[in-house]
Amino acid sequence: LDYQHVQVPFEITLWIMLASLAKIGFNLYNKLPSVVPESCLLIFVGLIMGGIIYGLNDKSPPVMDSDIFFLYLLPPIVLDAGYFMPSRPFFENIGTILLYAVVGTVWNVFGIGFSLYGICQVKAFHLQDVSLLHNLLFGSLIAAVDPVAVLAVFEEIHVNEKLHILVFGESLLNDAVTVVLYKLFRSFCEMPTIKTVDVFAGVGKFFVVGLGGVLVGLIFGMTAAFTTRFTKDIRVIEPLFVFLYSYLSYLTAEMFHLSGIVAIIACAMGMKRYVEANISLKSHTTVKYFMKMWSSVSDTLIFIFLGVSTIGENHEWNWPYICFTVIFCLIWRALGVLVLTFFVNRFHVNTITSKDQFIIAYGGLRGAICFSLVFLLPDFPRKKLFIAATTVVIFFTVFVQGMTIRPLVDLLAVKRKRESAPTVGEQIHIRFLDHLLAGIEDISGHWGQYYWKDKLEYFNSKYLQKILLREYDQPKSSIVLLYEKLERKHAIELAEAGQLGHAPSHPSLLNNDRTVITDKKLEDTLNPDVLENIQEILARNLYRIRRTGPAYNRHTLPGETEPVERAKEILILRHKSL
Amino acid sequence: LDYQHVQVPFEITLWIMLASLAKIGFNLYNKLPSVVPESCLLIFVGLIMGGIIYGLNDKSPPVMDSDIFFLYLLPPIVLDAGYFMPSRPFFENIGTILLYAVVGTVWNVFGIGFSLYGICQVKAFHLQDVSLLHNLLFGSLIAAVDPVAVLAVFEEIHVNEKLHILVFGESLLNDAVTVVLYKLFRSFCEMPTIKTVDVFAGVGKFFVVGLGGVLVGLIFGMTAAFTTRFTKDIRVIEPLFVFLYSYLSYLTAEMFHLSGIVAIIACAMGMKRYVEANISLKSHTTVKYFMKMWSSVSDTLIFIFLGVSTIGENHEWNWPYICFTVIFCLIWRALGVLVLTFFVNRFHVNTITSKDQFIIAYGGLRGAICFSLVFLLPDFPRKKLFIAATTVVIFFTVFVQGMTIRPLVDLLAVKRKRESAPTVGEQIHIRFLDHLLAGIEDISGHWGQYYWKDKLEYFNSKYLQKILLREYDQPKSSIVLLYEKLERKHAIELAEAGQLGHAPSHPSLLNNDRTVITDKKLEDTLNPDVLENIQEILARNLYRIRRTGPAYNRHTLPGETEPVERAKEILILRHKSL
Repeated sequence: LDYQHVQVPFEITLWIMLASLAKIGFNLYNKLPSVVPESCLLIFVGLIMGGIIYGLNDKSPPVMDSDIFFLYLLPPIVLDAGYFMPSRPFFENIGTILLYAVVGTVWNVFGIGFSLYGICQVKAFHLQDVSLLHNLLFGSLIAAVDPVAVLAVFEEIHVNEKLHILVFGESLLNDAVTVVLYKLFRSFCEMPTIKTVDVFAGVGKFFVVGLGGVLVGLIFGMTAAFTTRFTKDIRVIEPLFVFLYSYLSYLTAEMFHLSGIVAIIACAMGMKRYVEANISLKSHTTVKYFMKMWSSVSDTLIFIFLGVSTIGENHEWNWPYICFTVIFCLIWRALGVLVLTFFVNRFHVNTITSKDQFIIAYGGLRGAICFSLVFLLPDFPRKKLFIAATTVVIFFTVFVQGMTIRPLVDLLAVKRKRESAPTVGEQIHIRFLDHLLAGIEDISGHWGQYYWKDKLEYFNSKYLQKILLREYDQPKSSIVLLYEKLERKHAIELAEAGQLGHAPSHPSLLNNDRTVITDKKLEDTLNPDVLENIQEILARNLYRIRRTGPAYNRHTLPGETEPVERAKEILILRHKSL
Repeated sequence: LDYQHVQVPFEITLWIMLASLAKIGFNLYNKLPSVVPESCLLIFVGLIMGGIIYGLNDKSPPVMDSDIFFLYLLPPIVLDAGYFMPSRPFFENIGTILLYAVVGTVWNVFGIGFSLYGICQVKAFHLQDVSLLHNLLFGSLIAAVDPVAVLAVFEEIHVNEKLHILVFGESLLNDAVTVVLYKLFRSFCEMPTIKTVDVFAGVGKFFVVGLGGVLVGLIFGMTAAFTTRFTKDIRVIEPLFVFLYSYLSYLTAEMFHLSGIVAIIACAMGMKRYVEANISLKSHTTVKYFMKMWSSVSDTLIFIFLGVSTIGENHEWNWPYICFTVIFCLIWRALGVLVLTFFVNRFHVNTITSKDQFIIAYGGLRGAICFSLVFLLPDFPRKKLFIAATTVVIFFTVFVQGMTIRPLVDLLAVKRKRESAPTVGEQIHIRFLDHLLAGIEDISGHWGQYYWKDKLEYFNSKYLQKILLREYDQPKSSIVLLYEKLERKHAIELAEAGQLGHAPSHPSLLNNDRTVITDKKLEDTLNPDVLENIQEILARNLYRIRRTGPAYNRHTLPGETEPVERAKEILILRHKSL
């Protein structure tokens, strides 16, 4: 027996296997996950595992290695989150999200830090040796909402899209703030004196870390898209590039002390559109499937490890400090959301209701990121106290808040996510309104989101697509594509109903209500994949019509698009349809 | 800049990226790979990389770590090979393959070992200090044909199926022999005296290593199949199990000093059928795609590393020894193939022609396995000589033999792989002959391959499928499935030709030659995927007919299958088709 030789891969494989089997186990008992969130069950499994290890070895089980967490477990989850991010609601609410993520997090950090420092001054608690800086450092790691925990809970409760994107977007983008504040306070702790310059440098650093992350991500994303232009003959390694480039963007950002999470999200959102157009359908299925699989396993492992790492003797149980931490986390988050939403609502027609505000405040779950950060703290006497407080906050938010948020959502009758996808009719109207609003903004000279969206779309089709897409030269006529798709769908239906082979007379084919494809009917019969395709086609096509048509624009004269081109296009369309 | 922190994953990602980009690069120039095999080009890239590293650092670049090779790079390739192994030709030729793999390899090891020992006795070569045992040890690592190198070259030259499976099967199964002999001689080298018992223990060990590997593989394969029964609600982690269990089988086999390669192949071939039936179509696409992708990247990395590791000062260039090694490798392999084929041909109707024999002998490429094994040798004065000889043999076989084998195949007019897939008609006839032969063997009391195949098929449907398949209770009527598939295909064709939407009169539908689907027509219009499905359906169905029908069998009485069941089945068939 030669265990040494295979130990590392063998144990990694076994952990992943345990995670997968746990997932299967929970799903076999369908009733359990509907009451308790999966994250709680997984932590519970981890606690049992940790107990077993502790019992057998009589020493603390290994804690989750922060390097493993940040380098291997976190990136797949963030990549998945970025790749499948619904870009429309995200960009529509980007201002609000940034406000919550930046100002809200700073508010929480200083709020929690200063009030805990106040608690430390109470002599009865024996906490006088915890300095203000240490409290602020602790605040910086405990304030940030955790994307992994938020995803795990919010995916199960199906609140409306806007609410979801507000909480989830905040949890992703606050990484930049957390990175900056955490590193700032850590270096302050080690400095003898702090000058005002250092404080201002810290503020400046925030922009570098955030915008630098976006830049790194976009560069890698565009490179990835460009690379997939050349993979036509070796389809089989296409999916690799999606993973390699996004991982590289994360690592590069981390290397330069930028925000890796922001980088990987920018990379995923940037490349998605072009990569999807370049790679084959099977490659795309593989990419999507593997991303989901990977993030699901990472997620499972993180919660199990959270449980395992809790068992042991790393904690100093000073209950006043721990309890006040939980209370301050709740209070400052609630206050922050109230104040920020007040300002947000003044500038928006579509306001955030008080019910939504409550769920935003209550959905501020903490998770594995805090946990890894607290273990990364430099050694000082009260580190074990911070570890204990972090553990309790995480368990409180995941168990108490995570388990009660679903009943609360039911109780408050928070607006839910619509069950059905928007109909094609709705989709067309949304697009139409976009164009209308872009036109209005254009005329009124107001540079709002529609204006920028339109400009971006123009830049994309004018330059980016030509560089990044392989088959830009022969764009498929999208209306014809849609028509072909519907025809095929219809034919399959007929075949499945047995009307094709069993000699139907032709009139029955035409009179049959199957052939009259109304909008409603279409929704019923098409599966989500087909619908998605149709929506994509519509999106592409409607933009194209606006661009090529003689629309009014302050910067162009009507008829700038050459009529020859248009005529050619119409000819191609007609030719194809015949 | 904090490079230390991200170094490991960053460098791994960069190496994989280099491999992928190299692959894209070669494919952009279509003419290059048609002359030079990709493996040669990759070694060349590796040599350049190695040269650059050597030039920059002024010390030998790192050699490929044997652990990395055996634990991380080799398994994906072998898994891919096992999973996509054409099982029919493999089992038809299993006797011949085993003869080449076991007797042939032993023959080569002792032939090369003893004749090199003879060379060492020549005083002019200054090799007297290389003992017989060391020569045999060297023979055991240099004798084995390498699956990675064989795959890389034979995939490009498209020889006929039988020839391909003979060389490729041998290269996979000789692993058991190599493991045993290599470890045996290594332990002999360290033992003070060798007893006769040890030699016999070595012979016994071969069976343990080979059959143990098969057993470990099958156990994990069956467990994998059983696990996928329960993944219905979490489709997204299905692909994971295929990879996890096969990797575990490899690691477990390695842990017990069994043949990991044999284990992973047994696991892949064992689970394939059941896993495919259990998992969803998308999961299956992902599994296939990722397996191909992974093996392709591993393969690329191995050849690049081979090149990189060659540069440096690890070699002792004793040319007589090196040249004689190359010559003996060629001679003993040629002799071995000649002698073994002589015996094989005496017992087979379908003989191996002399052209085929030449290609089998000439296709004995050596590769990264020898290379890793030679670095694993315990330190002794002449290790660098062995490293040099191994490197030259690998380069000679990969470059000279690899590059000339294609022209030779052309020149000798070796029977090629048929370009088209077998027609459905052929397929039916092959199946029919199988049953006929199984019947004849049954009557004549000869337990040949058809007899065993039939027994295995019976055992499979009677016990294994019930345990391992999720939906065994409701087997789909396969003829109806095929019919539905053809109908759908036909409908799509009509739709694409525009005859459905553009109001064709019904008679034109029937008179149209499209509807008369002849066998030939079918071949032309169906794509390979559809054809494969049809063949699978036929295979399943024909077996079922034989089993359920009152076929003659020595062990059963006619009509043992209950007529009620049969009647029910016919009813279901008719009901479905209406």
